[in-house]
Amino acid sequence: MNRRGSYLPKILLLTILLFIFFSISVSADTTNTIPPNLQSYPSSSVPSWLDTGSNAWMLIAATLVGLQSIPGVALFYAGLTKKKYTVNTMFLIFYAFAAVLLVWIIAGFNFGFGYPSLLSIKGLGILGYPVPAWQGLYMAEQAVYGPSGTPLNIPMSTYIIFQFVFAAITPILLVGSVIERINYKAWMIFVPVWSLLVYSPLAYWLFAGGWLNQLGAVDFSGGYVIHLNAGIGALAAALAVGPRLAEERKLEPHNLSLILIGTGLIWLGWNGFNGGDPGGATIDAAIAVLNTDLAAAISAITWIIMDMKFFKKPTLVGAATGAITGLVAITPAAGYIDAWGSIIIGIASGSLPWLSLYKLEPKLRVDDTLGVFSSHGIAGLVGGLLTGVLADPSVSQYILPGLTGALYGNLYQLGIQAFAALIVTIYTFFVTYGLLKLIGLFVPLRASEAELKVGDYLMHGEVAYSDLLPNQAKEDKKELVVEQKPESKNENK
Amino acid sequence: MNRRGSYLPKILLLTILLFIFFSISVSADTTNTIPPNLQSYPSSSVPSWLDTGSNAWMLIAATLVGLQSIPGVALFYAGLTKKKYTVNTMFLIFYAFAAVLLVWIIAGFNFGFGYPSLLSIKGLGILGYPVPAWQGLYMAEQAVYGPSGTPLNIPMSTYIIFQFVFAAITPILLVGSVIERINYKAWMIFVPVWSLLVYSPLAYWLFAGGWLNQLGAVDFSGGYVIHLNAGIGALAAALAVGPRLAEERKLEPHNLSLILIGTGLIWLGWNGFNGGDPGGATIDAAIAVLNTDLAAAISAITWIIMDMKFFKKPTLVGAATGAITGLVAITPAAGYIDAWGSIIIGIASGSLPWLSLYKLEPKLRVDDTLGVFSSHGIAGLVGGLLTGVLADPSVSQYILPGLTGALYGNLYQLGIQAFAALIVTIYTFFVTYGLLKLIGLFVPLRASEAELKVGDYLMHGEVAYSDLLPNQAKEDKKELVVEQKPESKNENK
Amino acid sequence: MNRRGSYLPKILLLTILLFIFFSISVSADTTNTIPPNLQSYPSSSVPSWLDTGSNAWMLIAATLVGLQSIPGVALFYAGLTKKKYTVNTMFLIFYAFAAVLLVWIIAGFNFGFGYPSLLSIKGLGILGYPVPAWQGLYMAEQAVYGPSGTPLNIPMSTYIIFQFVFAAITPILLVGSVIERINYKAWMIFVPVWSLLVYSPLAYWLFAGGWLNQLGAVDFSGGYVIHLNAGIGALAAALAVGPRLAEERKLEPHNLSLILIGTGLIWLGWNGFNGGDPGGATIDAAIAVLNTDLAAAISAITWIIMDMKFFKKPTLVGAATGAITGLVAITPAAGYIDAWGSIIIGIASGSLPWLSLYKLEPKLRVDDTLGVFSSHGIAGLVGGLLTGVLADPSVSQYILPGLTGALYGNLYQLGIQAFAALIVTIYTFFVTYGLLKLIGLFVPLRASEAELKVGDYLMHGEVAYSDLLPNQAKEDKKELVVEQKPESKNENK
Repeated sequence: MNRRGSYLPKILLLTILLFIFFSISVSADTTNTIPPNLQSYPSSSVPSWLDTGSNAWMLIAATLVGLQSIPGVALFYAGLTKKKYTVNTMFLIFYAFAAVLLVWIIAGFNFGFGYPSLLSIKGLGILGYPVPAWQGLYMAEQAVYGPSGTPLNIPMSTYIIFQFVFAAITPILLVGSVIERINYKAWMIFVPVWSLLVYSPLAYWLFAGGWLNQLGAVDFSGGYVIHLNAGIGALAAALAVGPRLAEERKLEPHNLSLILIGTGLIWLGWNGFNGGDPGGATIDAAIAVLNTDLAAAISAITWIIMDMKFFKKPTLVGAATGAITGLVAITPAAGYIDAWGSIIIGIASGSLPWLSLYKLEPKLRVDDTLGVFSSHGIAGLVGGLLTGVLADPSVSQYILPGLTGALYGNLYQLGIQAFAALIVTIYTFFVTYGLLKLIGLFVPLRASEAELKVGDYLMHGEVAYSDLLPNQAKEDKKELVVEQKPESKNENK
Repeated sequence: MNRRGSYLPKILLLTILLFIFFSISVSADTTNTIPPNLQSYPSSSVPSWLDTGSNAWMLIAATLVGLQSIPGVALFYAGLTKKKYTVNTMFLIFYAFAAVLLVWIIAGFNFGFGYPSLLSIKGLGILGYPVPAWQGLYMAEQAVYGPSGTPLNIPMSTYIIFQFVFAAITPILLVGSVIERINYKAWMIFVPVWSLLVYSPLAYWLFAGGWLNQLGAVDFSGGYVIHLNAGIGALAAALAVGPRLAEERKLEPHNLSLILIGTGLIWLGWNGFNGGDPGGATIDAAIAVLNTDLAAAISAITWIIMDMKFFKKPTLVGAATGAITGLVAITPAAGYIDAWGSIIIGIASGSLPWLSLYKLEPKLRVDDTLGVFSSHGIAGLVGGLLTGVLADPSVSQYILPGLTGALYGNLYQLGIQAFAALIVTIYTFFVTYGLLKLIGLFVPLRASEAELKVGDYLMHGEVAYSDLLPNQAKEDKKELVVEQKPESKNENK
Repeated sequence: MNRRGSYLPKILLLTILLFIFFSISVSADTTNTIPPNLQSYPSSSVPSWLDTGSNAWMLIAATLVGLQSIPGVALFYAGLTKKKYTVNTMFLIFYAFAAVLLVWIIAGFNFGFGYPSLLSIKGLGILGYPVPAWQGLYMAEQAVYGPSGTPLNIPMSTYIIFQFVFAAITPILLVGSVIERINYKAWMIFVPVWSLLVYSPLAYWLFAGGWLNQLGAVDFSGGYVIHLNAGIGALAAALAVGPRLAEERKLEPHNLSLILIGTGLIWLGWNGFNGGDPGGATIDAAIAVLNTDLAAAISAITWIIMDMKFFKKPTLVGAATGAITGLVAITPAAGYIDAWGSIIIGIASGSLPWLSLYKLEPKLRVDDTLGVFSSHGIAGLVGGLLTGVLADPSVSQYILPGLTGALYGNLYQLGIQAFAALIVTIYTFFVTYGLLKLIGLFVPLRASEAELKVGDYLMHGEVAYSDLLPNQAKEDKKELVVEQKPESKNENK
């Protein structure tokens, strides 16, 4: 640096002079063809297959679901962590959002949604070609996806970004079981590989029209692909990574305001999460939004009642958790059921995950930090099975004519829903566990004892709140490189 | 638990085995009818009356207004409270959001917007049938509402959820006058009943085309139905519940960052609040959005000037409050007036509620914690009356042809606006006060002295920030059930 | 007050009585014309040129960009400041949002986008007429802008509010270089004048079809008009205002949760920022959104890698900054390039601004508090120049047919992009510096030493967190007027 430093001003000055010279000389060459003046978009930008209302809705739905991850889940999880892991928790989530987009564009989207199939067995679609999403002029084409080439009235770009945000939120939800001890380096490797190996195939099977869809299983907006997947992956990851420090094995939410912000963004963002699934601003989108909010409200109230009955008082964290389990459970069903169905799902999602969280998980001997197994895995399973019961043909006609639940006489639907849950559970559990164990051969899965003692400051050289800064650091703040020695003063704070 | 606990693993295992058996056996039954593959939405999902652009706009407008409540107002109010009531404040609001949706679907929507009328006198609509919103195949129908069956080019589901978020925010705004002492149990009963008894009728009279509308009164997006209503209800509630603890009767905002987040979401969310009122993405929606933001900006600047003149320095809380009073005051007028009108309303809303808050309320001998009477009641009244003055026929032609303010020669409009304000004020005040007094016969309206001494930890077993946790609690954190004895250590924090 | 106070109740009572009398008497006059009942919007509100899908998209895009400012950037910057300047930082930003809207409506919009031109030289458009935006019945007209009267399929009101949010965010970004010492009074004068003198002309030249556009320079959504402009303006302002207190010249982020919230809103809000530029929900909007998110993700990961290489560990602030420089750099290019282009821009924006921030800025001897010069100026420049290289005709055909980058054979495009950058840099630097120096003749540009010692409490009579309240203030809280003497107790906190 020192020696190079002395040349820097000269190089900079030279660059600036060249820049000025170049810009003036080239722009003075008026014989060049000057592009036309800016004007209203050309008609090729609004082809006949394009429905601008649906395109607007899908772009905003994608934006809402993106906001669920950052800052939504990042805040929800950060608020639930101990103060000293706040930065680390937010970093793991922020990184995952970016990393999934990268792998999604390079291979994940076409692996999960591409048309035609890479692999199909007896006509059942197994996987798409994992080619980059920008093959050909993808961006301007009409959206077409899955083994049967389903078309939508929106551009391919819109569909790629809409499906991305779901791919992103899945490992982000999963991380809740392993925060407060996972090594961020292991996580940085895990996320893109897991997205490709686990998320994309499940999306192909249950979203894009692959083999489980072809057998009749349905998952409106990700009860299985996203939530059961995240919940089972969370369990496997917690097993693979091991438990937190012995003295830290309890929930100590450090900031309930962050939890409230996160919950608000997650709840309202779910209007896009479920409302976007029909692929346009259709009747079914509206039905899905109404069912979604209704189930969330009933689930939150049910959870409040459970809290009041068993803990004697209602809690904010409980109400928020209940809303989220309601949102999870309605996800596989939102566009297929009527209001009665939503109410039943809301009651189930406010009580069964509650029982799982407080009665079952303590017996599991797995340290699932934030209870992701219950709040996403169990809630997603409950929703997916109830979809097989409650799917109402008078509603499903607007999105998937013929879909009929057991309550309306088609027991097969419940069976295939259970079968799909089984497949997702087994596939996710073993691939997640195996992948982490494999990564563990090269990179430690756990942060070091020293890092865990100190927390954020040793992991990232940052603290969430400036009050937490060790005294020494306050003095030599200018040195951004933090030595890797434990600063034990910090933990007394 | 102990005895049942020993059976739990066996029951669980049995369930899992049955689940696997069932799922495999049923899904192997290939003689069943397999639903068709997922494909693009059927054409029945986009009937000819559906405008996808308007549907997209209304769904996102509903989402924006939902975000105004949670996390918007929840943060705004929580930031303004004392630290020890943060959780309680957020809980009251979060609960209200869920509870209103429940009652809205069961009876509130059709009580306030249903077609045909339950009761009408001499052709004037008084109330709709309070039947559940899912009567018939409501969800897929075209939206139709009010005594004259006004149609919109969006699905009924969209309209139900759009109108819900307004119903929800009204008691959420109201609670600001009674935080820091209301008993959450009384609130839990109050919210759904009040929504049905007060909000739904007012909506019928002034939104849905009921008798006040039929007499000519207008309320574009809720200056009266929402804000005057919330402000007068706040006054009545503060009277009924009584004042805060003597030593706590001053405003001590504990976190201005939360206030800023809340204000941002409230301001920008108002683009949906007022922009959604025309029922579609029309010219009038665009005019309403522009007028809304303009009035908010001018009102904020006016409030800043008032602060600088009387308090010598501008404040962030003042600027935020000014923006909100501007948004409130433009609400009844946004789609009816021109830019001049917005400027006048902005100046009025930045000064008259200021005067009310600092000069009038201190004389009222009512302990309105956050000044809801001034910032919503007075601001809503100012806006509603000025609508009667400023309604410009060249603008109102795009939403309600014929509407003309006093400035353009129709003094009647001002008179009927004043009359409607009178009706809302009287109706809300007495029903709110009476309802609370009635509830007070069964449940104490106020939290106990012990609860108020400690705050959140005794009320909900939670603290907003982990630093606030009493020392003892840190040790026996695993017991979630908190004893009901005052933990006086906490209050010294 | 005291003497007036005794009359107040009587005046109030009289007003109420008059109000009741007036409202009843006028509304009883049934001979008046009663406006028609509320009904579905009239057809005049959906003229044939209106595309409701595009109108919905543009209104929501405007809302998203508004949320980027408040609370987005306000939180991002507040989180990066020292605790004692939190309120001041948020106030400066909140004020700017309101003040820009005011000047935008009065003159800024038509100065920057108005049709026809006020001034043009040899057919090159220099400026629009700075008349109020409400001239004529602007609000209901079809949007038409710039020297050649470019039409869009949305109402004028939508376009005015959409362009406003960009005008607002520019000085809001700029303020990052001068927080922690600028005098809020100087800022209150600076913002509206700067918006008119600097922002509006640049918008005319590069957004509305003015002379730089006519020479062929392009700026898809503000790499130059917004970010290079803000970055150079930040440099000029830091020079004009002078450095922070000697002991405070280091970055001490006080709250990383706020930074995370801000970053999330900024990132996802950018879907509207770039996606709205085509003026409708077109194919190009979708391409722009996908490119935007892709560049942000790659830039964030690049920055994380840079941090890990040079500082040994990844940081949350770094990841967030990298995402933002990616968003900045893709802004001038988003709708013109393909996915390869986005990837290249993302890598460049994750590394060049990093080098500028850590290697160049420390040598500049300018105290740019938050590094706005690097993160917006350099990133915007990098993006603008790369647009001249990477503009792909197969993409640009959907928005600006004929636009071709140097990579596809048109070296001129790079030259004119460099020339435009030069013009923006020179114009912004000198006008910004000169304007501040001029303001400095009348109002001190810096807060007083006493104010800087204490921070928010002395500047605004408020503290961000109630713990920061000086002890004395806790006692006499009722007096809202804070004396202007330094409360040195505070700084020990």
